[in-house]
Amino acid sequence: MPFLGPSDFKHKELAPGVTIRSTAGDRMTLTFFTFAPRSIIKEHKHPHEQVGHVLEGGLEFVIGNEKKVVKAGDTYLIPSNVPHSAVALDTPTGVLDVFSPVREDYK
Amino acid sequence: MPFLGPSDFKHKELAPGVTIRSTAGDRMTLTFFTFAPRSIIKEHKHPHEQVGHVLEGGLEFVIGNEKKVVKAGDTYLIPSNVPHSAVALDTPTGVLDVFSPVREDYK
Repeated sequence: MPFLGPSDFKHKELAPGVTIRSTAGDRMTLTFFTFAPRSIIKEHKHPHEQVGHVLEGGLEFVIGNEKKVVKAGDTYLIPSNVPHSAVALDTPTGVLDVFSPVREDYK
Repeated sequence: MPFLGPSDFKHKELAPGVTIRSTAGDRMTLTFFTFAPRSIIKEHKHPHEQVGHVLEGGLEFVIGNEKKVVKAGDTYLIPSNVPHSAVALDTPTGVLDVFSPVREDYK
């Protein structure tokens, strides 16, 4: 710290084919998601605000009542407690998400 | 919203050769920085916690007492009120930063 290396990240498998590595400050958690092709994050919600940016590949994303395919370079903002789900396209996919407040469940 | 397009971002020139586009939620501001080669962000600090990820190019970054060249794929976390500065390498550089709380000065 402040320059983050591999040992600063905690790894976790969130769902089949969906792995994350996370690091947290006092107010935010930064998480890299890796999706295998067609892997799924089921609908869920959380009190944390979430901003995300697709680094590679793409996802069919549902946020609240809106559905969109997001691809590398696209950005989204999920307000607190809005349900969301995602399915990766037929390609390895990487996403960077930041949550506030800190995700205690990713520690 | 929640899928962000060009009109959701506010543009600003922070310093010669350093432009940003920002969008904010309730708790965070997401900002894309674009640095011309060798452009400079002078030392400054702010109460906002800041996490960042280099998307392309690279920077000589000083955070507190630590100095490091960060390049595409590298990640850092700047705690509240820690002084920091950056000089872009000899290449166009893009960085994604997220701040919490919201940067009212970027609105």
